[in-house]
Amino acid sequence: MKFNKELNHTTSHLLAAAVIELFPDVQLGFGPATQEGFYYDFKFKKPLSDEELVKIERKMKSLASGGYIMQKTSGENYDFSDKPFKEELYKEIIQKGEEATFYSLINPSNHKILFEDLCSGGHENSTSKIKHFKLLSIAGAYWRGNSDNEQLTRIYGTAWETKEDLEEFLQILKERKERDHRKIGKELNIFTFSHLSGQGLPIWLEDGMKIRNAIRDRVLYFDKKYGFKEVLTPHFGAEELYKISGHLEHYKDDMFKPIEIENERLIARPMTCPHHIILFDKQKRSYKELPIRYSEQSRLYRYEKSGALTGLERVRGMDLTEGHVFVRKNQIVEEFKHLYKMILETLSMFDIQLDYVSFSKRDPENKDKFYDNDEMWDKAEKDLEAVLRELGIEYEEKIGEAAFYGPKIDFQVKTVLNHEITMSTLQLDFLLPEKFEISFINKNNEKETPVLIHRGLIGTYERFISILLEQTKGNLPFWVSPKQFLIIPIENSKHLAYAQKIKEKLLFLNFNVELDDRNERINKKIREAQIQKSKYQIIIGDEEVQNQTITYREYGKKESNTEKMDNFIAKMIHKMHYKK
Amino acid sequence: MKFNKELNHTTSHLLAAAVIELFPDVQLGFGPATQEGFYYDFKFKKPLSDEELVKIERKMKSLASGGYIMQKTSGENYDFSDKPFKEELYKEIIQKGEEATFYSLINPSNHKILFEDLCSGGHENSTSKIKHFKLLSIAGAYWRGNSDNEQLTRIYGTAWETKEDLEEFLQILKERKERDHRKIGKELNIFTFSHLSGQGLPIWLEDGMKIRNAIRDRVLYFDKKYGFKEVLTPHFGAEELYKISGHLEHYKDDMFKPIEIENERLIARPMTCPHHIILFDKQKRSYKELPIRYSEQSRLYRYEKSGALTGLERVRGMDLTEGHVFVRKNQIVEEFKHLYKMILETLSMFDIQLDYVSFSKRDPENKDKFYDNDEMWDKAEKDLEAVLRELGIEYEEKIGEAAFYGPKIDFQVKTVLNHEITMSTLQLDFLLPEKFEISFINKNNEKETPVLIHRGLIGTYERFISILLEQTKGNLPFWVSPKQFLIIPIENSKHLAYAQKIKEKLLFLNFNVELDDRNERINKKIREAQIQKSKYQIIIGDEEVQNQTITYREYGKKESNTEKMDNFIAKMIHKMHYKK
Repeated sequence: MKFNKELNHTTSHLLAAAVIELFPDVQLGFGPATQEGFYYDFKFKKPLSDEELVKIERKMKSLASGGYIMQKTSGENYDFSDKPFKEELYKEIIQKGEEATFYSLINPSNHKILFEDLCSGGHENSTSKIKHFKLLSIAGAYWRGNSDNEQLTRIYGTAWETKEDLEEFLQILKERKERDHRKIGKELNIFTFSHLSGQGLPIWLEDGMKIRNAIRDRVLYFDKKYGFKEVLTPHFGAEELYKISGHLEHYKDDMFKPIEIENERLIARPMTCPHHIILFDKQKRSYKELPIRYSEQSRLYRYEKSGALTGLERVRGMDLTEGHVFVRKNQIVEEFKHLYKMILETLSMFDIQLDYVSFSKRDPENKDKFYDNDEMWDKAEKDLEAVLRELGIEYEEKIGEAAFYGPKIDFQVKTVLNHEITMSTLQLDFLLPEKFEISFINKNNEKETPVLIHRGLIGTYERFISILLEQTKGNLPFWVSPKQFLIIPIENSKHLAYAQKIKEKLLFLNFNVELDDRNERINKKIREAQIQKSKYQIIIGDEEVQNQTITYREYGKKESNTEKMDNFIAKMIHKMHYKK
Repeated sequence: MKFNKELNHTTSHLLAAAVIELFPDVQLGFGPATQEGFYYDFKFKKPLSDEELVKIERKMKSLASGGYIMQKTSGENYDFSDKPFKEELYKEIIQKGEEATFYSLINPSNHKILFEDLCSGGHENSTSKIKHFKLLSIAGAYWRGNSDNEQLTRIYGTAWETKEDLEEFLQILKERKERDHRKIGKELNIFTFSHLSGQGLPIWLEDGMKIRNAIRDRVLYFDKKYGFKEVLTPHFGAEELYKISGHLEHYKDDMFKPIEIENERLIARPMTCPHHIILFDKQKRSYKELPIRYSEQSRLYRYEKSGALTGLERVRGMDLTEGHVFVRKNQIVEEFKHLYKMILETLSMFDIQLDYVSFSKRDPENKDKFYDNDEMWDKAEKDLEAVLRELGIEYEEKIGEAAFYGPKIDFQVKTVLNHEITMSTLQLDFLLPEKFEISFINKNNEKETPVLIHRGLIGTYERFISILLEQTKGNLPFWVSPKQFLIIPIENSKHLAYAQKIKEKLLFLNFNVELDDRNERINKKIREAQIQKSKYQIIIGDEEVQNQTITYREYGKKESNTEKMDNFIAKMIHKMHYKK
């Protein structure tokens, strides 16, 4: 399955040609190939219907078969009347002193131009290659992606060299739609949004909270185990804080605006590092105290344009599983080993498959992009390399991909849709401690500046859960399932008391349990329970009450089992804590 | 121990007289009696030292023995030159058409005026009654309590009729200081503040978080048990939301200012009720779904003047153990019983002694202060009365103390300092559901408006923990102690592995455990452990390793015990969950 960019680019021109034939008064915007297809932006006189999309596709098919030839042409005859978007682009090219190029689809029999477009090229030579394509969807898009500009209609499509490729790709799209966390999140009552409580600020519903709590419990356990001090710092920072940290200078456009309160100006914080530095700096520190590790489930705020907001993937408010470690320079190697172990153990407990480790260094040819201190960089990169070697970790070196403030090690995973994402990260930071002028008293009774390590564990709850939903199609593993147990007493009058006792026990152990005590017929209850997809369906009748047993059926299995209640519960505790 | 207000008021005049003798160029502000003493506000030319306070007290003693007579005098001779504060008050009285009265201390031998003050009276007739008093402290205070005004120096003092009373009161003050949660919170590393992360926004430190987590676990357990759906809604609300709810109209001065973000205006939320209404309103509701119960550990923001901020007691950011229940009118009685049971069980698990239950009703003589719907009030008050009677609850009726939107039942407790506070609350609300026009479909297939019940469980974490620290002087009960276990291996080389295993087990069970694996002498470790006040000190040596036992000493006890590790842990789980 090979994606052909030229083919898709040419198909986007064909789309424009078809649209002009059907809607002569349309205006054209951009029409490029993308990673998986193409689009073209149009300004229609009135909204486009789905039926019209089908008509356009039909028109494209008939044009394609005409075998129009794609030719680079001189642009002198290009008509900009009623083409304000194209004219804008053309003028920019001319102003920059560059050459404007034009591509035309030409009728092979009469050499007439079907469609001519201002375009930098990259095309097939004939529309006869365009056989297997599909128009996929219509979306709104601002001219040049800027919400201050006019809104256009974007038509998405995709083109492939063979019928099989097209079908396979459409299958992938279908799969992707099924796995869309926004769809699953809605169906399973996990999250929602409301303009009344702020766009891009997630509302977590009951089952979403159960998932979050299960994740949180594990994260807190690992943080405790690996010596992190859990703290909870304010979700605002004074403007002064971000002046010192440099965020206000470099990051302002991504931040919320300040609120004035008496003599203060508070900003909904974009990150927590400065807050943890405040904590470090609250008292005199001795070298003996280091490393000092702070962790926090941090609420953060980032300004995203409303058009860019996407479910839990791109939000304006999020909670990060965050950590910061303050170390002496000679502790960097030991601490990285410690944190590496922590990350591996955590990812394994969360059943996350690590794809590869990347080591991002400074680009020595392009030092301007990085904090200016050669000695520091050389030492730090050597230190990290030594750790990686010592631990026998294979890694990909990424030159020039370091953070401004220091080198970093990222833990990359692949999602089920083959996207590569950074799950965990360890970043050395020499800069913030200097900016805040924090220090500890070293062995020689002198002030020394500590090094800061930023530790990301499993990212934000928002992104982690969106991936979890995508990977599992919402069929969550036991430990994180909001529907672990559903208890059904056969007859309330005889079996409810025992059922309630079981519920109480499981609740007390922090499991998620429902009890169906409605006065409905048992068959109806069981039928409805199937739809609920509880991991364990527990039926309580005479025998169970008498023998203090539990009869259960695991989701997806046919047979039922009966076990002593205490044994069953012990098994479940084990299952909860030791893998899924 | 009887507090004498007149005595204290006269002593405040005596204080002013003494100050004028010692600092003739001082200016005078207010000088009233308080609940426990008196104060006087002065404008000194330069800051007052502690030594000078002693001098003033001495001067007061010598003046008091002069037996000056307190007399109401005509104010015509009162000299306002260089007394701008008094003049301001005087003019106000005259403008209002009231009579200005003056009180003077008069020398009994020569009838000369020692000190004359604009004052509405309430005095002893002679300074000879002033024998047992003390000046307590100096503080800053704005003229008329307004931070826009000039800052003055306030001298606090207290006066009593007998030596014993004075001593007893000073003892209470000492006790109160020891119990001050700000002092304990600092000593035990529980919370702090920084102007860089916003005044009045608490920073929770490691041990504070352990306390919060222990409380949170219990609250979440009870919320689950009593059918609440835990949710997490955004910490902001759109301005529109608070327009609908009426908060913007009635509560604006207590709220943060809005942040503009694209086309929205977001306000850091002062309460969560509207957010839970959004959730109720997200879909069509049937009468069968009710009651719907939402709970949240809600972050809230209130604007308080910086001068009013007091430790965790008065903050600008807080987390509330909140609940909202939507019911049909005919479910109010049942639901109140359910919630009453929940509150009693919770308070008992938290070991909180209930003082009394209050039932706050509308004042039928003053209906203007309350939501206007006679029928609703009559029904609601009768309903609640029926519940209270049926459950055999004794209660104090408080006429006119209801909320604007409906009657309420409060659960009052007394703090160790004898302050009465509301711990839990149940409030009926007919208004918000109407304002938001929410509804469910009733049995007759008609739209019906639900009733909202606001449920407070243990208030905010901030206030609850400040009281907890005050009640216990920081010696927290086991279940909420950040220092539950401290494990000390006698020799690392031989005993560390087993000690680590115990630590891991306890950590896994969510206990708070420290392991002292420093290479220090055992005696030093044990000595230092005493200072840490861990609830259980566990010593691991040869015998313990060999027999898989634990030798432990409970804090405050002399003897040590040895027990099988598993038995010990089982005992601790029991202790954790079933009372302290």
